Amino acid sequence: MSSFTINAEIYTQGGRLFKLSHQSRSTSTKMNLNVYLPKQYYSPNESSKTIPTLYYLSGLTCSPQNASEKAGIFPYADIYGIAVVFPDTSPKDLIDVIPSSKDSWDFGEGASFYLNATKSPWSSHYKMYDYIVKELPLALHEYFNNQKNAIAIDFLQSKSIFGHSMGGFGSLMIYLKNVSEYKSVSLFAPISNPTKCPWGTKAFSGYLNSADEWSQYDPMKLIKQINPATEQVYPILIHQGKSDSFYINGQLQPESLVEASKNTAFDGKVLLNLVDGFDHSYYFIGSFIGEHMKHHAKALGCD
Amino acid sequence: MSSFTINAEIYTQGGRLFKLSHQSRSTSTKMNLNVYLPKQYYSPNESSKTIPTLYYLSGLTCSPQNASEKAGIFPYADIYGIAVVFPDTSPKDLIDVIPSSKDSWDFGEGASFYLNATKSPWSSHYKMYDYIVKELPLALHEYFNNQKNAIAIDFLQSKSIFGHSMGGFGSLMIYLKNVSEYKSVSLFAPISNPTKCPWGTKAFSGYLNSADEWSQYDPMKLIKQINPATEQVYPILIHQGKSDSFYINGQLQPESLVEASKNTAFDGKVLLNLVDGFDHSYYFIGSFIGEHMKHHAKALGCD
Repeated sequence: MSSFTINAEIYTQGGRLFKLSHQSRSTSTKMNLNVYLPKQYYSPNESSKTIPTLYYLSGLTCSPQNASEKAGIFPYADIYGIAVVFPDTSPKDLIDVIPSSKDSWDFGEGASFYLNATKSPWSSHYKMYDYIVKELPLALHEYFNNQKNAIAIDFLQSKSIFGHSMGGFGSLMIYLKNVSEYKSVSLFAPISNPTKCPWGTKAFSGYLNSADEWSQYDPMKLIKQINPATEQVYPILIHQGKSDSFYINGQLQPESLVEASKNTAFDGKVLLNLVDGFDHSYYFIGSFIGEHMKHHAKALGCD
Repeated sequence: MSSFTINAEIYTQGGRLFKLSHQSRSTSTKMNLNVYLPKQYYSPNESSKTIPTLYYLSGLTCSPQNASEKAGIFPYADIYGIAVVFPDTSPKDLIDVIPSSKDSWDFGEGASFYLNATKSPWSSHYKMYDYIVKELPLALHEYFNNQKNAIAIDFLQSKSIFGHSMGGFGSLMIYLKNVSEYKSVSLFAPISNPTKCPWGTKAFSGYLNSADEWSQYDPMKLIKQINPATEQVYPILIHQGKSDSFYINGQLQPESLVEASKNTAFDGKVLLNLVDGFDHSYYFIGSFIGEHMKHHAKALGCD
């Protein structure tokens, strides 16, 4: 089991932000991440409940810092009592092992698309799906609940996921592959139709071998595989700025998700909000973060 | 009169952030700044009042972006209906004129200390006091109120000022020199005693010629010159993190301001909050921004 190194413990709002690193079995590299523990963790009282967790997946080129610094998440994490995890966007500093890993800003380092690469040379380290879905929740759960605190944090069972752009794709794909594992998902300007846009086809063709493998990560196909008779699903909240140049240029296509959801378990449950004037930046994310946090708090039972 | 170039107009929260530049008469350079106009400006109703303005002065090395991106100011600007101005921390890109201007991170570019330099070569361009106090409010007032909007913004008469670190010093110094011009001031980890700390003595000795000139910018002296019989003053709100390494190392000394205020117009009105665990970063500023915005809203009559 990986053990974490605390590189910084920062007081902010009513809680603390931990800058952590650990050796990952999935990626066979050191991985960096941030974890925010809300004020409820530090001021438990008799009515305190276990704290649920929200995983935030960032977009192309990002690190765990972008959303930690700019998204305005922590005031809401304190209102609802939710821990927030910010994983990295890929394994990093692999230039000695994968010389091309820094050649592009939209492929390789900072651009894992959160899948398990099967194509060489990426397949040796780019196992981000296993890392985010399997390894990290377990590692955090054991680490933070091994410290004899008055209140527990549930990184495993009571968890939701959200993200931006490439991280919107990652969150959507991970949720659709694990609807019983995550309570809810929400998306900011997600890459929704990866096999039909330049960013997605570059990533899928670079990381994956076969058309069958593409299907395993394609939200357009995954959404149709969920059986409405046996699976409980929660509405998917999406915000998309109409002045986002990547939306205008066809990289994102959130409407395709609404279309694909018809006659599936998510029919009528893809809540796409197209908002006038907003762009692709954290100024946009920070404007709607309150609605997204409320969405997850309700699903996690702490609204 | 300087006219502004709009380099970006960004939708965020309920208002818009303008990234502006203009040619300054004070500094004889192009100056960059950001201006946030709150939602009230875009959704006026019958009870709408003139919107007051809050000037935010950043710390060493900063640009107008740092606080715009990280301080969490805009949600509160929308609650109270306040415009927020983020000037730059010095003239920039003067390396051809002042070759040493980029030699230090704590002197020269990004480190003006918001005063009027009298020593060569800085005296040719580093006239930031005149820029912030005199030129900029007038230029903004004329520019934004010349656009036939339903609601006016008062950049001139109904204004307050706050800032961080070097910008805390700048805000304090500017307020104490102009108590009748600004409705209120508040400070995050301010350089409070500049003639008795390394950052301040480096700046004052580099930019200014004489001991008399030092006194003109020294809060320890300025605070004693305000006549309590004739001047209306407003309490000075301060937050200082106890784990801030610059506080621990003596660069900030906010206690000296409490001491200097005794038997002055500000006796009992320096509200210094020392807070456990917090550092010098925007994670600290963002944690107390709500209290500071409320402080100014009350003084500006929009709480």
